[in-house]
Amino acid sequence: MIKITQPTLLLDQNICVANISKMAEKALKHKVELIPHFKTHQSAQVGEWFKEVGAGAITVTSVKMAKYFAQHGWNDITIAFPANVLEIDKINELAKMVDLKIFVNSKETAAILKQQLRSPVKFYIETDVGDGRSGVNAGDFSAIAKILEVTNDSELEFCGFYTHAGHTYNAVSPQEVEEIFEEVLKKLSSLKRHFRKAFPNLKLALGDTPSCSIIEDFGDIDSIHPGNFVYYDLVQHGIGANTIGEIAICLAVPVVAVHPERQEVVVHSGWVHQGKDSLRGVDGKNYYGLVVNLEGEKWTAPISNAKVNKLSQEHGVINLPSKIIDGIKIGDVLGILPVHACATAVMMGEIWTLEGARLEMMPRLT
Amino acid sequence: MIKITQPTLLLDQNICVANISKMAEKALKHKVELIPHFKTHQSAQVGEWFKEVGAGAITVTSVKMAKYFAQHGWNDITIAFPANVLEIDKINELAKMVDLKIFVNSKETAAILKQQLRSPVKFYIETDVGDGRSGVNAGDFSAIAKILEVTNDSELEFCGFYTHAGHTYNAVSPQEVEEIFEEVLKKLSSLKRHFRKAFPNLKLALGDTPSCSIIEDFGDIDSIHPGNFVYYDLVQHGIGANTIGEIAICLAVPVVAVHPERQEVVVHSGWVHQGKDSLRGVDGKNYYGLVVNLEGEKWTAPISNAKVNKLSQEHGVINLPSKIIDGIKIGDVLGILPVHACATAVMMGEIWTLEGARLEMMPRLT
Repeated sequence: MIKITQPTLLLDQNICVANISKMAEKALKHKVELIPHFKTHQSAQVGEWFKEVGAGAITVTSVKMAKYFAQHGWNDITIAFPANVLEIDKINELAKMVDLKIFVNSKETAAILKQQLRSPVKFYIETDVGDGRSGVNAGDFSAIAKILEVTNDSELEFCGFYTHAGHTYNAVSPQEVEEIFEEVLKKLSSLKRHFRKAFPNLKLALGDTPSCSIIEDFGDIDSIHPGNFVYYDLVQHGIGANTIGEIAICLAVPVVAVHPERQEVVVHSGWVHQGKDSLRGVDGKNYYGLVVNLEGEKWTAPISNAKVNKLSQEHGVINLPSKIIDGIKIGDVLGILPVHACATAVMMGEIWTLEGARLEMMPRLT
Repeated sequence: MIKITQPTLLLDQNICVANISKMAEKALKHKVELIPHFKTHQSAQVGEWFKEVGAGAITVTSVKMAKYFAQHGWNDITIAFPANVLEIDKINELAKMVDLKIFVNSKETAAILKQQLRSPVKFYIETDVGDGRSGVNAGDFSAIAKILEVTNDSELEFCGFYTHAGHTYNAVSPQEVEEIFEEVLKKLSSLKRHFRKAFPNLKLALGDTPSCSIIEDFGDIDSIHPGNFVYYDLVQHGIGANTIGEIAICLAVPVVAVHPERQEVVVHSGWVHQGKDSLRGVDGKNYYGLVVNLEGEKWTAPISNAKVNKLSQEHGVINLPSKIIDGIKIGDVLGILPVHACATAVMMGEIWTLEGARLEMMPRLT
C-alpha cells in the first residue's frame, strides 16, 4: 500500500472489477444492455475496466463529463441531464465527435435545439415516474407528443424514454425497491406500448443503482444505466443494494488527536474530503461513515460501534469503543467507508489502488 | 457580466472588499489583530485585498493551503488544525520558508515534533471551550502544562492559546452568540492569567466568524481569525452575523426545465456546485439556497418565497411563486445565494468577479 501522510482515497480494484462484472453478467442474463453511468468514478482508467466486459456506450451527467470521456476514446455517450441550451456550442462540438444522446424534456427545449443543432443528435425524453426531480410526467402522453411533434423533421432523432427512479433511494429494503420498480415498470410499459406505434425502435432506459442492483426481471426495459454500483457505499447498503464487502473505496485518514476521556479520535477528514452526506443511526444520530482498519494490503470489516459522528471542513471526529481507542495513537491511519461514494470521489479528485497506482479523474475545471 | 452558459460562481468585489474593510476597522478599533482565515476563499487574488487593509499574517486549515499561500507571498502563516505528524516533511519544508505557527494539542504530538522538527516553529495550544471538536479542554491546566513541559527546550516556541468557538454556529441570534462568547472569554482569560506567569507574551487567538462579527468587546483576546466573513452566507445570516446584502458570492445557474404545474424550475446546480449544506425553513423543510435574479451588473434581493428545495449531483430544483414562474423560460439564468459559502467556493474551485475577471483558487490536487 502507498504511504499515507494525508487523506487519500483508496480503491480495491478486485472489488471494483467484481462489481462491474456482476452487473455486466446480470445485464447479459436478463437481456438488457448495460450502459454504465460514469458520474461516480469520473475516471478514464476505471472506464477502461468497463471495456473489458464489453461496454461500448456510456452515460454521463454533464456536457463537461461527456467531453472528458470523448477525449478518452468513448464514442457513444448519453448525457443524462436535461439539455442545457446555453451550452449549444459545446453540444454541437460533441455531436461531431461522438454518437451523442441528450435529454429533450420540453417542446421549448426541442424548438431551440431544432434551430441550433448543426448535426444529427439522438435524444431521450426523460420521464418522471414519481421522483419529482426532472423529466416529463410519465403519464402525460400529450406533453410527450408535443415534443415529438417539434422534433419531427429535424436533426433530433428520438430513441426512447429514460427514467431515473430516484425515489428508490428512499427505500429501506430490497422489497421496497421491488415494489417501487413494479409501479415504475407499469408506467414505462404503458409508454412503450403507446409510442412504439409511431416509433417501433424506441427503447426504455433505466438509471438508478438500487433498481439495477436488486431487480431480477426488467420486463420491457432495454438498457440499464447504473453508476454508483462501481464503488457502492453505505447509502446503497442501507437500501440493500450491496454488502459491506462490495464497497470498493475507502478513505485513508491520519489520526491527529486521541481523546480517551470522550471516546473519540480526531482525524484529518472533513467534508472537503468525504462530502457531507450522512445516514441516521439506530440511536437517531447522524453519522458520516463507518470506520475500518488498514491492514497489510487491504482494509478490514468495519469496527463495531465506530462511526464518524462529527464533520467540519477538515476535521472528522470518530466515536470508538474504549478498548479500541486504547490501541490508537497519533500518527496512525484509519479508514472510512463512504456514506455516498459519488461525493467522496468528487471531493477527492483522484484515487489510488491498493497496489499504489494513481487513477486520474475528470479535472474539476475545464 | 460574463456570459453564463454553465454554473458559474460570481463575486461582487465591492461587497467582499467592504466585508474585509469592516472587519479590519473593527479589529483596529478594538485593538485586536486581524489574522484572517483563508479557508473560505482559498484564492491568491482575494488574499491580496487583505494586504490593502494591512494584514500581514494569515490563518489556513491545512499544510497544503499553507504551502499555496506561502507560494503567493505570505510569510506568517498559522495552520489552524491539529498538527498531523505524518506530514512532518512538509512542515519542515514550510518552516524554512515562512514564520510558521502550528497547533500542538497533546504531549504525544509535542514529543514527536520535538524529535522531528528541523527548524524553529511557533505553536498554539488549541483549546476546546465547549465545541467538542478538537483541542485540549480549556479547563485542563494539567494537560496544557504537560505539553509545555515536553516542548520546553526544543524547536517549538509557545505563542498562546487558539480557540475556535464552533458552538456559536448553533446560535440563532446575536444575543445567543454574545452569551456563548461571555462564557468562552471567562475560560480564556483564566488560561491567560494562569499561564502568563511563565509565558508573559502568550496570546489569545479566537477563530469563529459569528463571534468576530457580532462581539463588540473582545476582552483579553489578542487576535481574531475569522474566515467566512469574506463572503458571508445564509448560515451566518441566520445567526445574525451579516445582512443578506453583505453576501458577496452568488452562484449563477442555467434554467433547464420549467414546471409551472408544480411551481418548480430545474437548474443546473447540484451538490457538485453548491455543496450539500441546507437550512431548515419556517415550514420545517430543508432548503439549499435562496434565489435571486441577475440584472445588469449585479444580483437582486432574494425573490420572496423562492428556495432551492431539492438537490442531487447536478440537479437543483427551485420552488417559486406562480407569478414568478410565468416569467421564467428555459435558457434563463438565475442566481443562488449560498447556504455555506466555504462549501460553494470549494466545490466551484474558481470565481468570477462581476466585471469578468477570473480569480484562481488553490488547486484541489497538489
